[in-house]
Amino acid sequence: MIANNWIFWFIPVASILALLFAWIFFRQMMKESEGTDTMKKIAQYVREGAMAYLWQQYKIVIVVFIVLCAFFAVLAYGFGVQNGWVPFAFLTGGLFSGLSGFIGMKTATHASARTANAARRSLDSGLKVAFRAGAVMGLVVVGLGLLDISLWFIVLNHFVEEATDTQKLVIITTTMLTFGMGASTQALFARVGGGIYTKAADVGADLVGKVEAGIPEDDPRNPATIADNVGDNVGDVAGMGADLYESYCGSILATAALGASAFFLQADLQIKAVLAPMLIAAVGIVLSILGIFIVRTKEGANMKQLLSALGKGVNTSSILIGLAAFGILYALGIENWIGLSFSVISGLVAGVIIGQSTEYYTSHSYKPTQKVSESGQTGPATVIISGLGLGMLSTAIPVLTISLAIIMAYLCAIGFDMKNMLTPHNLSLGLYGIGIAAVGMLSTLGITLATDAYGPIADNAGGNAEMSGLEPEVRKRTDALDALGNTTAATGKGFAIGSAALTALALLASYIEEIKIGLQHIGRNVLTFADGVTVNVSEASILDFMNYYQVNLMNPKVLVGIFIGSMMAFMFCGLTMNAVGRAAQSMVNEVRRQFREIKGILTGEATPDYARCVAISTRGAQKEMLLPSILAILAPILTGLIFGVSGVMGLLAGGLGAGFVLAVFMANAGGAWDNAKKYVEEGHFGGKGSDVHKATVVGDTVGDPFKDTSGPSLNILIKLMSMVAIVMAGLTVAWSLF
Amino acid sequence: MIANNWIFWFIPVASILALLFAWIFFRQMMKESEGTDTMKKIAQYVREGAMAYLWQQYKIVIVVFIVLCAFFAVLAYGFGVQNGWVPFAFLTGGLFSGLSGFIGMKTATHASARTANAARRSLDSGLKVAFRAGAVMGLVVVGLGLLDISLWFIVLNHFVEEATDTQKLVIITTTMLTFGMGASTQALFARVGGGIYTKAADVGADLVGKVEAGIPEDDPRNPATIADNVGDNVGDVAGMGADLYESYCGSILATAALGASAFFLQADLQIKAVLAPMLIAAVGIVLSILGIFIVRTKEGANMKQLLSALGKGVNTSSILIGLAAFGILYALGIENWIGLSFSVISGLVAGVIIGQSTEYYTSHSYKPTQKVSESGQTGPATVIISGLGLGMLSTAIPVLTISLAIIMAYLCAIGFDMKNMLTPHNLSLGLYGIGIAAVGMLSTLGITLATDAYGPIADNAGGNAEMSGLEPEVRKRTDALDALGNTTAATGKGFAIGSAALTALALLASYIEEIKIGLQHIGRNVLTFADGVTVNVSEASILDFMNYYQVNLMNPKVLVGIFIGSMMAFMFCGLTMNAVGRAAQSMVNEVRRQFREIKGILTGEATPDYARCVAISTRGAQKEMLLPSILAILAPILTGLIFGVSGVMGLLAGGLGAGFVLAVFMANAGGAWDNAKKYVEEGHFGGKGSDVHKATVVGDTVGDPFKDTSGPSLNILIKLMSMVAIVMAGLTVAWSLF
Repeated sequence: MIANNWIFWFIPVASILALLFAWIFFRQMMKESEGTDTMKKIAQYVREGAMAYLWQQYKIVIVVFIVLCAFFAVLAYGFGVQNGWVPFAFLTGGLFSGLSGFIGMKTATHASARTANAARRSLDSGLKVAFRAGAVMGLVVVGLGLLDISLWFIVLNHFVEEATDTQKLVIITTTMLTFGMGASTQALFARVGGGIYTKAADVGADLVGKVEAGIPEDDPRNPATIADNVGDNVGDVAGMGADLYESYCGSILATAALGASAFFLQADLQIKAVLAPMLIAAVGIVLSILGIFIVRTKEGANMKQLLSALGKGVNTSSILIGLAAFGILYALGIENWIGLSFSVISGLVAGVIIGQSTEYYTSHSYKPTQKVSESGQTGPATVIISGLGLGMLSTAIPVLTISLAIIMAYLCAIGFDMKNMLTPHNLSLGLYGIGIAAVGMLSTLGITLATDAYGPIADNAGGNAEMSGLEPEVRKRTDALDALGNTTAATGKGFAIGSAALTALALLASYIEEIKIGLQHIGRNVLTFADGVTVNVSEASILDFMNYYQVNLMNPKVLVGIFIGSMMAFMFCGLTMNAVGRAAQSMVNEVRRQFREIKGILTGEATPDYARCVAISTRGAQKEMLLPSILAILAPILTGLIFGVSGVMGLLAGGLGAGFVLAVFMANAGGAWDNAKKYVEEGHFGGKGSDVHKATVVGDTVGDPFKDTSGPSLNILIKLMSMVAIVMAGLTVAWSLF
Repeated sequence: MIANNWIFWFIPVASILALLFAWIFFRQMMKESEGTDTMKKIAQYVREGAMAYLWQQYKIVIVVFIVLCAFFAVLAYGFGVQNGWVPFAFLTGGLFSGLSGFIGMKTATHASARTANAARRSLDSGLKVAFRAGAVMGLVVVGLGLLDISLWFIVLNHFVEEATDTQKLVIITTTMLTFGMGASTQALFARVGGGIYTKAADVGADLVGKVEAGIPEDDPRNPATIADNVGDNVGDVAGMGADLYESYCGSILATAALGASAFFLQADLQIKAVLAPMLIAAVGIVLSILGIFIVRTKEGANMKQLLSALGKGVNTSSILIGLAAFGILYALGIENWIGLSFSVISGLVAGVIIGQSTEYYTSHSYKPTQKVSESGQTGPATVIISGLGLGMLSTAIPVLTISLAIIMAYLCAIGFDMKNMLTPHNLSLGLYGIGIAAVGMLSTLGITLATDAYGPIADNAGGNAEMSGLEPEVRKRTDALDALGNTTAATGKGFAIGSAALTALALLASYIEEIKIGLQHIGRNVLTFADGVTVNVSEASILDFMNYYQVNLMNPKVLVGIFIGSMMAFMFCGLTMNAVGRAAQSMVNEVRRQFREIKGILTGEATPDYARCVAISTRGAQKEMLLPSILAILAPILTGLIFGVSGVMGLLAGGLGAGFVLAVFMANAGGAWDNAKKYVEEGHFGGKGSDVHKATVVGDTVGDPFKDTSGPSLNILIKLMSMVAIVMAGLTVAWSLF
């Protein structure tokens, strides 16, 4: 069928274009000088630490992948409850996800000293180096994502043999969906391991360095400072990259599977519906590259101008992709192309609103965060209370936005046919619309991720400038770049959570497609309802499955699933919070030991043992990431084996509902605490060193695992649980207890 | 029909028996002396403050009730979308709930000085006075609850006219269900207002008194100390009482409604199924009174013996009610009486397990809380992180327990007919089983609430002893009583949350019954399905409604409802957390002002202005409780008007899932912080006054609104949202947008 659709080839071409530009930007960045010898040395330390960590992580991940792959192979070839492609799809997903994390981090660790050095020339040069380095990450993620999708599409198109083309396309899209689990699993370890690493180092460095010894952030006398800078790379770069790689692929694949199902009876439309999400993503790549080139500032730009320069790039890409959606869907000749284009736009707009609301709640230019600073006047306890309160309240706008986006995407896709809103055909079409909205939100990932990855690079550049003892003027510039990075990081986090929620919803819908395939795979081709009516599985609608499995809110299996899903989100956070606590504790003990045993560290006469702190963070992260990760993988499998399809769907819905809200709460509370401290440091309520400052430092420390470990890991949890459920669909239908 | 069932009269008799024993215990307690003049004076202050607060609260609640009643009257008599009994049922529910809060608090405020005075004689006498006073509360709640139910049953039986007895019983039970909303609304204000009051006073008193001025807890020099003691009464006594009154009535009424529906086609069984939950509750009252009499200790009993004395009373009642369930259900001649008896037992056992797990996670006799203390060695930030981690992890056991209880109650009720688990008949029967499990859990409320209300009474007795300057020996005894109270309070909180979850689930199931009545009320007597099949509303099964409204997890309205429900739980907590923060802030300012302006307070030469602090807490609570309360009432109404039945059910399920887990998390984190501080005060990690102690005081302060304001208020939120949905069912089916 591809042969008839020359338009398909636009997709691999766009992916290669992305990789090409990533390579160009990488070369450009590498041509910059790394600056003085000290700067080089420090950059080298950070690079080595980051790479050492990544290799350690990959070693463990490889073991996990081997175990899971063997498990899938047994299920597929031993028991025949699964498609034989699954183990391979799983592997490539993991491989490509790991690769994008690796490249992104390599780029980031090369870019930080270069950014600091460029900042010696001018603020603008610094911004350019850092942002282009971020763009490498953004483009690698979208490029590899779409490349993997294209390759699998070509391979499966060649090998899959089915009676009809429509049936074949269903098999292809549902098989491809399972490669998302590989990406998810890799992402989980990257996010959880990286998150634990970075915050163990950060909290440890802060607790002893800032609070006990009273030395500033990134001071070279602090033994944990290199580990802290390594952490920014492994957590915020590699972790974030793997997370969004997964959302990106997940949303495209889920939508393709929903499209194959929604248009099952119309062979000509079906292939178009499958290609549409991929094409929107492909056009998004081109427009992202365009947006990246738009980001320029004049010499001597101030903060506001810098922010608007970034904003201009992102907004241009977003508006253009919105317009392009109409063109793509029209050109494809999709039924109701206008409506579906508005579905794309509802996703795009939701992404922007969530980003804005994140900024409102976490930036100290606004009231909420300033109030958290103010509450420091009555000590650390009230800082914590007000930060938690702020975080909880801040969930309202994102949830209402996503809810509105879901409803709008659905209704647009069915052409506002309200009277028949939930007929089988409209349900398929509407869910496809929700998937398309997720794709729309993520279509600008090339550039949004660039602004996101820019943050830790600027942060590290500041660290490098501080440790290398560069002139105050330079540090001021890197501080400005860092501050900009904090804002983009906050909006980026909102975007990551929002897109994870929409993607998870699309995955939930496509779960039913996998159930269908699973049933056929084990030879159950007919659904027999309680009243004796029979429906062929291959022709059964989503609604038929809902009724057959009674996936309604009065089924105790669904209700129990919702309870367990909600609990999973909290338990997962509890495990990661405690992991950071324990790992930070070891770091604190190590730093205290070095201050005590290595004479002359605090006077600057002796060099601390940075490597040891790096090793401690690495070991801590490795040890602590296993339990939460295994739990996330086991929960949907066990729920499926015990409670069957309806239990699993309850689990996913409960995990999605509670997990999304919890993730927003944690990210925003953490962000607000961070900036509340910065607000005090800018001279409010007594400024640096005052009691209010000390109180807000406590908030900041609590916020660290909130915003950088547990909160972001939840994004993966909700997607991974869906992915595991999807891959295990065959197992669930074959063997579930009741 | 009642005439044929003499057994019905056992229910009002049991309720009057409860009230009689409550009166006897109250008289006994009042006969005790209040001790020295100082003790009397202090008790008088607290009593006046508590009563002043309660009247203020009732004033606001009356306004809210008038508004809501007028609204219901317009809906019922103006638009005819509602049953005409609703406004009256709503009123009595509120009245009786308010009354039990009032009596409980009056008793508690009379009991504290008497407990302190009795403790001058012996530990045992102190225990007896405090526990019997707590029993007054327990028995008043169950007595008034069952009395209200009995009276309405008699009245409606007299007035409701229907063609058949079975139809009549459906109307009676669904009408009675709406009186729960009155109780819920009253409970919401009691919990939220009381919770804000008590923690504003507590946090304010601690922040300035303990942390800044360095004076001990309950020191008479602290101007906020009387307000703090008042707070224990309005929050922990009146709030807790109203909360459990609501769970108690809600579970009985929901189960009765489910019973009327499940046995709709078997007139002889139907009345029995309706009476069964009431009879179990009635027998529970008798056995609770028995249990109360069992609580005795020998002279000179130690802590462990005290605890086992209480435990003996509760456990005896629980075991006996478990056995009695078999007898009641057998005597009634209910279909599958053995299975349903095991449903009762699954509820009872779940209550016990949740209580035990709460104790494990919050008592400093166990590892988790000790680790929180230990984390104080690295400052307040790690105390907060580890406490939050502990709270999140602690959600696992309660959620799994409730999940297991739900499944067991369901399966027992349908006689483990796994193959037909979800047929219409088995679904009704199974949901009835879940309701019966909730009734089982709450059947021992008479005695469990007694041990619960005992806590704040003992706490206040300690406060009185401290302020009156009684001998150290007496204070040691009141400290022992207080410590016992902390343990019972923790298990009581777990019990309150668990029972709220089961009750909310039963309410969710009975929501469909109200939808049925609502449809008939507006004259829609036939459901026409998409495929043209029609079903008479009066004969439609729960499953028919699920299919008709497509309350499944692929319906975007359901999914959006789940999102919004999850968000409601967080937002509600955010509002109450911030409310405590703001109210505490005013208290801090006032206490600081008094220390500054009234010379000689700290030297004991001048008396602080206690009344002003009481007034500030009262004003703060009044002002702050309105917004969260209105939100909780509006959310289900608006969701219903926009998204209809399926959206409301999503809202309730999402709110229940996230709300339950969040409530457990907050209660346990708060409890652990409290006891982690106590553990340090007992001399670990440096003891009182050390840096570790200061760090754990921060945790304790953060934990105050967690465990006493936001956490417990969530119990009401999840029940109230269901109750509002139930009362508004007519509105939803008549006018929903889509």
